[in-house]
Amino acid sequence: MKKILLATMITAFLSGQVAAKTWLLTDAESSTEQGNWHISSEQLKSGGENFSIEQKVLHGGKQEGSKVITITSKNGLTIALSPTRGMGLLHVNGHGVRLGWDSPVDEVVNPAYINLESRNGVGWLEGFNEMMVRCGFEWTGHPVTKDGVIYTLHGKAENTPASKVEVIVDDKAPHEIRVRGLLKENTFKKAKLETWTELRYVPGSDSFTIHDVLTNQSDYAHDYQIIYHSNFSTPILEENARFIAPLKEVSPFNDYAKQGLEHWSTYSAPTKDFDEMVFNLVPLADSNGKTIAAVLNSKGDKGASIEFDTHQLPRLTMWKNTDTLKQGYVTGIEPGTNYAYPVTIEKEQGRVKQLQPGQSTEFTLTYSLLKDAAAVQKVEQRVKDIQGETTTSVVEKPIAVE
Amino acid sequence: MKKILLATMITAFLSGQVAAKTWLLTDAESSTEQGNWHISSEQLKSGGENFSIEQKVLHGGKQEGSKVITITSKNGLTIALSPTRGMGLLHVNGHGVRLGWDSPVDEVVNPAYINLESRNGVGWLEGFNEMMVRCGFEWTGHPVTKDGVIYTLHGKAENTPASKVEVIVDDKAPHEIRVRGLLKENTFKKAKLETWTELRYVPGSDSFTIHDVLTNQSDYAHDYQIIYHSNFSTPILEENARFIAPLKEVSPFNDYAKQGLEHWSTYSAPTKDFDEMVFNLVPLADSNGKTIAAVLNSKGDKGASIEFDTHQLPRLTMWKNTDTLKQGYVTGIEPGTNYAYPVTIEKEQGRVKQLQPGQSTEFTLTYSLLKDAAAVQKVEQRVKDIQGETTTSVVEKPIAVE
Amino acid sequence: MKKILLATMITAFLSGQVAAKTWLLTDAESSTEQGNWHISSEQLKSGGENFSIEQKVLHGGKQEGSKVITITSKNGLTIALSPTRGMGLLHVNGHGVRLGWDSPVDEVVNPAYINLESRNGVGWLEGFNEMMVRCGFEWTGHPVTKDGVIYTLHGKAENTPASKVEVIVDDKAPHEIRVRGLLKENTFKKAKLETWTELRYVPGSDSFTIHDVLTNQSDYAHDYQIIYHSNFSTPILEENARFIAPLKEVSPFNDYAKQGLEHWSTYSAPTKDFDEMVFNLVPLADSNGKTIAAVLNSKGDKGASIEFDTHQLPRLTMWKNTDTLKQGYVTGIEPGTNYAYPVTIEKEQGRVKQLQPGQSTEFTLTYSLLKDAAAVQKVEQRVKDIQGETTTSVVEKPIAVE
Repeated sequence: MKKILLATMITAFLSGQVAAKTWLLTDAESSTEQGNWHISSEQLKSGGENFSIEQKVLHGGKQEGSKVITITSKNGLTIALSPTRGMGLLHVNGHGVRLGWDSPVDEVVNPAYINLESRNGVGWLEGFNEMMVRCGFEWTGHPVTKDGVIYTLHGKAENTPASKVEVIVDDKAPHEIRVRGLLKENTFKKAKLETWTELRYVPGSDSFTIHDVLTNQSDYAHDYQIIYHSNFSTPILEENARFIAPLKEVSPFNDYAKQGLEHWSTYSAPTKDFDEMVFNLVPLADSNGKTIAAVLNSKGDKGASIEFDTHQLPRLTMWKNTDTLKQGYVTGIEPGTNYAYPVTIEKEQGRVKQLQPGQSTEFTLTYSLLKDAAAVQKVEQRVKDIQGETTTSVVEKPIAVE
Repeated sequence: MKKILLATMITAFLSGQVAAKTWLLTDAESSTEQGNWHISSEQLKSGGENFSIEQKVLHGGKQEGSKVITITSKNGLTIALSPTRGMGLLHVNGHGVRLGWDSPVDEVVNPAYINLESRNGVGWLEGFNEMMVRCGFEWTGHPVTKDGVIYTLHGKAENTPASKVEVIVDDKAPHEIRVRGLLKENTFKKAKLETWTELRYVPGSDSFTIHDVLTNQSDYAHDYQIIYHSNFSTPILEENARFIAPLKEVSPFNDYAKQGLEHWSTYSAPTKDFDEMVFNLVPLADSNGKTIAAVLNSKGDKGASIEFDTHQLPRLTMWKNTDTLKQGYVTGIEPGTNYAYPVTIEKEQGRVKQLQPGQSTEFTLTYSLLKDAAAVQKVEQRVKDIQGETTTSVVEKPIAVE
Repeated sequence: MKKILLATMITAFLSGQVAAKTWLLTDAESSTEQGNWHISSEQLKSGGENFSIEQKVLHGGKQEGSKVITITSKNGLTIALSPTRGMGLLHVNGHGVRLGWDSPVDEVVNPAYINLESRNGVGWLEGFNEMMVRCGFEWTGHPVTKDGVIYTLHGKAENTPASKVEVIVDDKAPHEIRVRGLLKENTFKKAKLETWTELRYVPGSDSFTIHDVLTNQSDYAHDYQIIYHSNFSTPILEENARFIAPLKEVSPFNDYAKQGLEHWSTYSAPTKDFDEMVFNLVPLADSNGKTIAAVLNSKGDKGASIEFDTHQLPRLTMWKNTDTLKQGYVTGIEPGTNYAYPVTIEKEQGRVKQLQPGQSTEFTLTYSLLKDAAAVQKVEQRVKDIQGETTTSVVEKPIAVE
């Protein structure tokens, strides 16, 4: 085991004031791939909370060659993500609560087997089963064909295998773990958008943070869009489960959602033929731009919350897909630069952002698993505090037609 | 060798009354992949007919990573199939006769290298070289674009790597071998059609059976279509080779086939510029719905037959592709739920079947290599018996225009 | 090491009068793949110039599984090519000069991750970073959609993994090295175009030769097109770098190039918003049909030249992409059967060639790294000699509109 540690550990370095150990799991530049790999707090003799981190190469069906990294924390969360699928989060578990959902797609599909253009631009649906998908960064929303180009559903990031993956563990307690992955959306003449994704987790805690830095590496200004498509189901989602967030405005995505506008923030039990309703939300934030959104179970003793920064992610989409369990009983809390309309509409309506040559922008989101009533109440209070006296305006008419 | 047997043998179980050994070669759920693998009757000390079963991972060109399973029976058949290519049968050989053909595509193409949408929906042709391809199950026929969606040639099943593959050998003589593979056509919001394919073979015999169970795993009714595209060439196909089947009706697929209607059931030698003619057939069956179709060589001492059930597969397509040897000198005997028209036409004409939520349907086809005149005559007699006094009506005009 | 040599060396044979050793690195037919592999002149005890040849399987990002073969010659050139990417040349280095360029695409992208049809037929740009790409052979130029079929940018060859790869080293000094790769563009009913590509290099020299043999393996005549897209950047390309070639005619590819016609053969420094200008050239040749084209640096002491045969490759395209360094500061010297117009236009204007059944055609191009003023002057003189008294006619109007 010692040998493996020496072989794969790149360096102990000072990051700010914190000494840490780094393992390079994947690197296209040096053509590195650790394949199956494992470390644990025991090996590291780090003391403190018990944890392990594992990378596994998957086999079978359309997941042949896909990699999954799993962080296991005995007293905290188990977090699984896939470097092969754009560092997306597969599922998170802890305290008997699961963040994530059951998609009809039950493999970690290697993008080699996906054609994003299939089914008129929704090939992405052949791989979609994550708890959190980055929809971006060249474009983010529903598909649209313009000048013969199909802007496929939810962009290319999630179907882009990470070019570099590293795991960093702080030497000192609480031994924060970082799993970093570099996504390159590089196409000659078209884009050079590179994103360093980062997952930060302190063993034993009930929260983790996504911290992504997107850089326009080209010499030309380039549009970008991002939606953090974060998906929750049972045991949180259930009849009378609630979505909460401090809001300035809510509007239905389309005419079908308009029919559900009255009870938009309350969920039904699994409902045949429900399909999906989507609501566009303008979040309110505290004086620092920070806000929070959450889905809570009926009883109010389980939930999932996402804290984010409205300077980075000014829009929020709520995806209500309370269809049957097998069809996908799931809700999405989706902070973004944009709504989920096609890029043509988002552009027209002025929500598409741009990065200048060499410019970077960052996105920080903290996900919490709310394991009990106390945790839920804390989030409810936070939402109330931010909402304050402001009323949420309800726009009846969809702001755009696809 | 013992070690391998122990490591890969999952269980000896009672299936009905027959104890059997099972080897799990591939399993996405447990992320299992045996890679190169081999067993033989000698190892199993099973006695009886000599046989071996081998899995090999292929390399080179577009077949990188494709897997092939080969059953070899000294006194019977050698059967090769590919789990990577939807459990399709590559070729079958025995007694100096070959079932299969020579396609210009001479590699076992990994679907990772195939874009089904290319060439206006006929990318499937870049991998097609099998003796038997499942064309299905979401759709089956010629490509068509509807509402921007390309329903690509012959569906997705054959380009779907199997999610689970197991080999089962009965403990008792005659030691029937079963190779089972699970195909998942699962797409969020679109389909959850899962098919357990099965090949059954008794070592030493000249026949094998395909037994597939298709299940609609979703909560919604779903259309399905299947054509078992079974392809034969030399040494059976030759000038004056004949196609036989008990038939109620024959009609030309299109105007070009109409020109060949008169001699539709007799084959020419390899013929430049012949291209292909397709004929739609309505098979007759015995009182149990069972029927048979066959292609026989000129002399009547070699052939291939397929027995199938018209309750499961009420239609039959005969594909006459007697072009040059290099272009593909081949005929298809294709029992199906449908003809090969685009799904739009099949739907319109009422031939598309549907499965209710959770419902399964099965397809059983027995393929026989007819090694001599006696075997051929037996099939001829069977065809005559089923045909009886019924005349085959010849419809001159194509029933649809693509 | 001896063991490896024995294991991988196929045969010592007599080719003409020269005995040689052959190593089979990849072969789909026998399902061979050597993976990481290495030989050196020391091992071979060949004497003479020091050299080594290595194959490496790459990892990370979209280059997972891509292979690169690198020839290293201490006193000559280092040449890298990728069997996975159609035997394309990645980059060549020697004497402080680099042939090649810096694309925003910085991985050796496995074609499994490329959809040539994406972005309306320019998915090829997601992998393009080679020093030399074969654009062919079914078609070669800019994308066009005809009868629903997208003829994607620059054809399929570069995204076709080689089916067979062998390395041959002559036993006798100067131990010429040949790296041969077989590309199969085989699609049932569409094409059976097979190309044996060959790179020939004599260790220690500053030149190498590409010798490709394209065969129409089908029974039908088939069109073919090929452009050898050869790309150069710094340190050769710079402000006042020059393109030279003996020419009968030059015309702008389109109206934008027309604006740059006056100074078409001189290059600018990296220029923002330059994008690309393309010029169609009709080369002059000596009495044997041989000609040469080159790009030379400003001072005239560095350059790259390509000798080719106008009987094989009657047209020449000059691609001037003097955009910024990060966007791709690069020029293409592109001998071809055709210009880069879509196949529909090339066909209409009569430049598309055809191969009869079984017919082969070959292409021989010698690339030289010009390391000093003497080497540059020799090429300049050769161009002058071929040009002679003939004036180059300048056609002002583009010969076609895309």
